[in-house]
Amino acid sequence: MIIAICGYGNLGRGVELAVRAAPDAGLFGIFTRRAPDTVITLTGVDVFPVSDILKYKNDIDILIICGGSATDLPRMTPELAAHFNVVDSFDTHARVPAHFETVNSASSKNSHIALISAGWDPGMFSLARLYASAILPDGVDYTFWGRGVSQGHSDAVRRLDGVVDALQYTVPEYEALDAVRRGDTPAISPCKAHRRECYVVAAEGADRARIEHEIKTMPDYFAGYETTVDFITKEVLLRDHAGLPHGGTVIRTGKTGESGEHSHVIEYSLKLGSNPEFTASVLVAFARALYRMYLRGERGCKTVFDVRPADLLPLSAEGLRERLL
Amino acid sequence: MIIAICGYGNLGRGVELAVRAAPDAGLFGIFTRRAPDTVITLTGVDVFPVSDILKYKNDIDILIICGGSATDLPRMTPELAAHFNVVDSFDTHARVPAHFETVNSASSKNSHIALISAGWDPGMFSLARLYASAILPDGVDYTFWGRGVSQGHSDAVRRLDGVVDALQYTVPEYEALDAVRRGDTPAISPCKAHRRECYVVAAEGADRARIEHEIKTMPDYFAGYETTVDFITKEVLLRDHAGLPHGGTVIRTGKTGESGEHSHVIEYSLKLGSNPEFTASVLVAFARALYRMYLRGERGCKTVFDVRPADLLPLSAEGLRERLL
Repeated sequence: MIIAICGYGNLGRGVELAVRAAPDAGLFGIFTRRAPDTVITLTGVDVFPVSDILKYKNDIDILIICGGSATDLPRMTPELAAHFNVVDSFDTHARVPAHFETVNSASSKNSHIALISAGWDPGMFSLARLYASAILPDGVDYTFWGRGVSQGHSDAVRRLDGVVDALQYTVPEYEALDAVRRGDTPAISPCKAHRRECYVVAAEGADRARIEHEIKTMPDYFAGYETTVDFITKEVLLRDHAGLPHGGTVIRTGKTGESGEHSHVIEYSLKLGSNPEFTASVLVAFARALYRMYLRGERGCKTVFDVRPADLLPLSAEGLRERLL
Repeated sequence: MIIAICGYGNLGRGVELAVRAAPDAGLFGIFTRRAPDTVITLTGVDVFPVSDILKYKNDIDILIICGGSATDLPRMTPELAAHFNVVDSFDTHARVPAHFETVNSASSKNSHIALISAGWDPGMFSLARLYASAILPDGVDYTFWGRGVSQGHSDAVRRLDGVVDALQYTVPEYEALDAVRRGDTPAISPCKAHRRECYVVAAEGADRARIEHEIKTMPDYFAGYETTVDFITKEVLLRDHAGLPHGGTVIRTGKTGESGEHSHVIEYSLKLGSNPEFTASVLVAFARALYRMYLRGERGCKTVFDVRPADLLPLSAEGLRERLL
């Protein structure tokens, strides 16, 4: 299976390393909007201008699109799905149905296959929610995120006037998490289940009180959350906040029995040393499965829900049954 | 979808309740080796002698076989797979390949579909192992069971001379579990990762020292494990050990990065108030998926690895994407 990467930020670099770790995949190269000779890759693989990508459509089995969900993927994935088998990590939950439709239309019409929203949420957390809901129909779901760096919230802070750089950590309320783990079913909104820690490098002379106020009252992002704002220097930001850790927990508690007398707790949790590298690893596993589905004749847009687990690993059905069942 | 149950012990009763909880399933009835008029069901459903089962082959979409893995299922599942679409919870890991072959042969030849080894281990734990291995190829797996009642080990103790009744709890070594959760990769065998607690009701005048010795030295079951044996009365057994709780944890720790510099921990854990009712709930979810696969023309023996997650829930593809992705 020959994979190519379109977009070379943190996620693209993660995919480059995940392909290297896959015994059955090769990397054709990286497509970028930047001037190719200014891009230094981790593995020395070829770099091409994205404007040339259609020249290589017969050389690539699966194209992994590594762009942002806000503006890149809604445009790029349908465009490229007309010419390639594609995988993306589109993660704006509310816009998944619309994104699915445009990608499905482009890939189906051109006899290609596509998979959107692979990653950890959406992605592995979605699978955890689905399996748990199927097993325990009489139950309640909780998703806790963190402690980890939220890229979208960090960007929102960086855009404020007087902010040089910033990072935002999403932190679960561990008391609520422990209650749910014990089988309790508290009525808590995402606002009350998480708090937000901001580390901000302010410009010299900037009005810190104004910045803090603008963060804490920012609608959709911070308003309604318990939020702390710490001003730090650029040096401290680079020293103490260099990684991109993340993670979280999906828990479903449910009841069975003649009158619901038995309680069950299903928990799926992730502690990720690097959010983009983990997401990249999920993308490559689903790229493998998608290419197998393509070879079997499947076309159009899929999600992680449509993928047989057996297709995710480079092992025979017999090997899987012997080693993992 | 019309389901029938073959075998009416703890697991069969669990399936009866799980079918009642499924909005899209009806229960045809229960087939038993006992005299049907001596069997009182939880929901008042019809009871038939198993010897009559072939009379009803056109009335049943999926037959869930609720028997033991030691002697019942290796014989019953292939026999019934020749006439019905069947699901079982065969759980002897080492014999899965052989069981698969006999069931696959019977169901394929007769244009039926079958699914073996649905439950939590094998079953949901197998899926957790597969997904985690696919995402983190450079990693190590751990499975911890318990704290919970192991039916096989309890039976082994009950078979000893002078034992009236007994229960065995499998207990994970929480220190090892916590180390793995932190991302450590200790070299521990299952023997050292678990200990075994036995609660034994001895016959009057029985030699307790001999029973304790026979338990602790029993090969395959207890030899090599840290094992405790407590002698209790029948009353205490019934009062303090009436439920069948179980559970456990599958953890994979793995590395990504240019030189493995980022660590990740994927954890799937279950706390089950009733082992048989949870297993039954898994069986019914996979019965739903299997029937959909049958209607699409798939035949022969499958495992949980072959089932698309989307088939497990009675929701449309659009509904799943909107609500769970």
